[in-house]
Amino acid sequence: MTDSTEKTDTLKVGPYELKSRLIVGTARFPNYQVMLDAVRASGAEMVTVAIRRIDLQASQEAGVLDLLGGDYQILPNTAGCFTARDAVLTAQLAREALETDLIKLEVIGDDETLLPDGEELLKAARELVDDGFVVMAYSNDDPILCKKLQDAGCAAVMPLGSPIGSGMGIRNPYNFQIIREELEVPMFVDAGIGTASDAALAMELGCDGVLLNSAISGAKKPVVMADAFRKAVEAGRAAYTAGRIPRRFYARASSPTEGIVQYHED
Amino acid sequence: MTDSTEKTDTLKVGPYELKSRLIVGTARFPNYQVMLDAVRASGAEMVTVAIRRIDLQASQEAGVLDLLGGDYQILPNTAGCFTARDAVLTAQLAREALETDLIKLEVIGDDETLLPDGEELLKAARELVDDGFVVMAYSNDDPILCKKLQDAGCAAVMPLGSPIGSGMGIRNPYNFQIIREELEVPMFVDAGIGTASDAALAMELGCDGVLLNSAISGAKKPVVMADAFRKAVEAGRAAYTAGRIPRRFYARASSPTEGIVQYHED
Amino acid sequence: MTDSTEKTDTLKVGPYELKSRLIVGTARFPNYQVMLDAVRASGAEMVTVAIRRIDLQASQEAGVLDLLGGDYQILPNTAGCFTARDAVLTAQLAREALETDLIKLEVIGDDETLLPDGEELLKAARELVDDGFVVMAYSNDDPILCKKLQDAGCAAVMPLGSPIGSGMGIRNPYNFQIIREELEVPMFVDAGIGTASDAALAMELGCDGVLLNSAISGAKKPVVMADAFRKAVEAGRAAYTAGRIPRRFYARASSPTEGIVQYHED
Amino acid sequence: MTDSTEKTDTLKVGPYELKSRLIVGTARFPNYQVMLDAVRASGAEMVTVAIRRIDLQASQEAGVLDLLGGDYQILPNTAGCFTARDAVLTAQLAREALETDLIKLEVIGDDETLLPDGEELLKAARELVDDGFVVMAYSNDDPILCKKLQDAGCAAVMPLGSPIGSGMGIRNPYNFQIIREELEVPMFVDAGIGTASDAALAMELGCDGVLLNSAISGAKKPVVMADAFRKAVEAGRAAYTAGRIPRRFYARASSPTEGIVQYHED
Repeated sequence: MTDSTEKTDTLKVGPYELKSRLIVGTARFPNYQVMLDAVRASGAEMVTVAIRRIDLQASQEAGVLDLLGGDYQILPNTAGCFTARDAVLTAQLAREALETDLIKLEVIGDDETLLPDGEELLKAARELVDDGFVVMAYSNDDPILCKKLQDAGCAAVMPLGSPIGSGMGIRNPYNFQIIREELEVPMFVDAGIGTASDAALAMELGCDGVLLNSAISGAKKPVVMADAFRKAVEAGRAAYTAGRIPRRFYARASSPTEGIVQYHED
Repeated sequence: MTDSTEKTDTLKVGPYELKSRLIVGTARFPNYQVMLDAVRASGAEMVTVAIRRIDLQASQEAGVLDLLGGDYQILPNTAGCFTARDAVLTAQLAREALETDLIKLEVIGDDETLLPDGEELLKAARELVDDGFVVMAYSNDDPILCKKLQDAGCAAVMPLGSPIGSGMGIRNPYNFQIIREELEVPMFVDAGIGTASDAALAMELGCDGVLLNSAISGAKKPVVMADAFRKAVEAGRAAYTAGRIPRRFYARASSPTEGIVQYHED
Repeated sequence: MTDSTEKTDTLKVGPYELKSRLIVGTARFPNYQVMLDAVRASGAEMVTVAIRRIDLQASQEAGVLDLLGGDYQILPNTAGCFTARDAVLTAQLAREALETDLIKLEVIGDDETLLPDGEELLKAARELVDDGFVVMAYSNDDPILCKKLQDAGCAAVMPLGSPIGSGMGIRNPYNFQIIREELEVPMFVDAGIGTASDAALAMELGCDGVLLNSAISGAKKPVVMADAFRKAVEAGRAAYTAGRIPRRFYARASSPTEGIVQYHED
Repeated sequence: MTDSTEKTDTLKVGPYELKSRLIVGTARFPNYQVMLDAVRASGAEMVTVAIRRIDLQASQEAGVLDLLGGDYQILPNTAGCFTARDAVLTAQLAREALETDLIKLEVIGDDETLLPDGEELLKAARELVDDGFVVMAYSNDDPILCKKLQDAGCAAVMPLGSPIGSGMGIRNPYNFQIIREELEVPMFVDAGIGTASDAALAMELGCDGVLLNSAISGAKKPVVMADAFRKAVEAGRAAYTAGRIPRRFYARASSPTEGIVQYHED
């Protein structure tokens, strides 16, 4: 019998087990129906929803939560928080409202770029871990910061490919390689993914999963794009486990591989 | 009803209709069984086999043809030919032996790089088209050469991503964009694909299909890699038809997109 | 009269004025003579020297300082410090020994990658600025971190192109563009520069200067390479001020520029 | 005595010797004075001028030739020719008018992209070499085509970085590395150079020289940009001869270099 795709390639994030390695967001879809269809087409089991410090009952998020709550693991996130204090309060609010210790931690440094503030992020991560949260930390692609987030007890570290909503893909694959060497907890790419090949590349670079939102919600055909990402994440994962051919300068079997980019070999 | 993946996204190459946009080769597999399992896992309908100017009955290719012939459309190729004359003779031999007008035309300029010789390629393409062949031409990523191959009557033009067997992916996506604008016949990427994300990117750049061999046969787990490519080609095709988000410099909705790479928008 | 290169294109870093935009380090040269010749060939006015927490009199650095001190502005650096506390103490030692408030602040997170630890770096920068130092901060290419270093009062911010000694060039030009938009204080690229074109590119991306060491000291012919960097920094600066042509998809004057990378336009 | 820049680093193209490795064009400058100032600032000894099949006496080129002829080696070119026949006739016209066997051969395949037509180019090159011309052939970055141009007797082969006037730089450095291995005659990059770092990179990839026009004539300050290119070409040449440090994955002296792009080592 030859090799075959492993049937039980599950991913553990803290106490959670995921068969799908794609986590999707729910913001900025044309309407609820498209959102629901796209989330289904994506194959995701975990769905992230922004929790703002307002009355959840009256918010748009409440509607999203009602629609999704039964079928998906909700991953509340602290989008829009600019300080550790804000993020911690938002996480606590999410825990009360949703009865989950799971939190995607975002602490933003700048409302133009939406890039993370590493200093505040570390502060919030430490506090939330101490308070019993299962923290998935949205981070810059800074290997030292990612390592410190792991050391702080985060259940997953989620470096950005490029700024939120930019669709610029993974601007620095080299950093992802370094981060992969540094981390033992799961690594997701979170932010910047624009299209299917970006997601496949992320998995080939050793990411354990992909989190995205606007690449689906902002596509011309969101449901088709959700299907594309489902396949791309599976493809990238399979390629990673299959062990790609080395890059060679050119064709000869005997040609040296020196001088050639090689992102990953098992 | 929201958008959905088109059910009947077939590709026509001359008189042939393909549902799978992946064409795979049969060379350099560990053994026949792995080759057969990988070809099946790839989902390909068309399989390319090198025809050498030897007695087909006694050759290794004969075995391959026996194994595959019933289930797959065989695409004979002229690998190893260095002149138009050699390639034309090999194509004629293939036609007699396999009773097909279909030919993947390769004319190599150099046995170190295995890069195509455009001048001899054009000569052979013109002669084979005149002789009634359905020619799929393996070409350099030179937009003018690709256009001349189309003008010569080729049924498909197949620029390389990088040298055969190099696994270097698509070295010049920019040329693929120009070629896509120049061509009306199907465009395949042929040669250089190393991993799943390369294939997804090729489709997002507007390729109608992907042809590869050593990326599967040389992987550590060829059957898992074949499955990866099947999904990657589908993912890239879906992303292409779904209409990706534009690239933005950063997050703001109002931020200008100028100054940013954008490979493809519908 | 047509345009000409500005004669007085000086750079101010805190109270210091520099005519050369290249700062070079003194470590790892084959011998002192090559070091001196290379520093001279580089045209640098400012030279960086590592201050370790040992008796300066007895150290190798002492010899370097004696050789250079009269002719160059010495920029002491805190290479090898892993905590804010270490870096602050080293800076104070340097101030006493060299009678200068100028300090290149490095706080390293990891002795494999030598990447900066942003959290400790910020702590040290704030303390040193409070203590009256003119701080030039070696940083990750994280736009928010760079902004916070400026807000802390640093006189210059010096993001890395890639890890120290890697010679990988600027791995993420996109971040440099964002940082350039965020900063008003001078921006240097510090670390990762491997060859002349890397330095020219840095300047074209809007860097005010380039700091490097091993690209010169580790070259086969250090003095020739120093000359190369002198010219490359001048070339990149001139190109930046000259206003490059826009990138176009292809040749036509009327062709749209959409879809094309454009790193910088004035 | 330590290493130093070679004083006599001249380049031979056929019978011509060049101290400057930059060749510039004269088209599309705001006016003659800017053109003259820019050509002087570039340090070029050889200047290329388009010869069209019109009465040279009455043409704009005539003025250019009068202005430059005494001080520079004129390199007539066949810009605007679409067939071998046209190019050969234009070259013969240039020889008569300018009394030089030197010709920059361009045969264009398409007036949108201005990309070369390799088939016609080869035909023209063979004919002109037979007729005693010193042919510098503007080519695609196709290694086999470049090799065939050398075999045809061309004195220099000049692959494009990207389409004429695009300013896209060297889209495929990998091909330049392959071409460098294939060629013994001088290799210039011709077309696509946009800014100083592009020119430095070209030289570091092993080009013997750089030919450009619109990167200078189209800059906001053409004379400053000409100065930038003079320095960039010298910088890239010096870096090439100086022997750059190898790329390493990261800092450790002992770290392996595998997995890293390395364009060139002596």
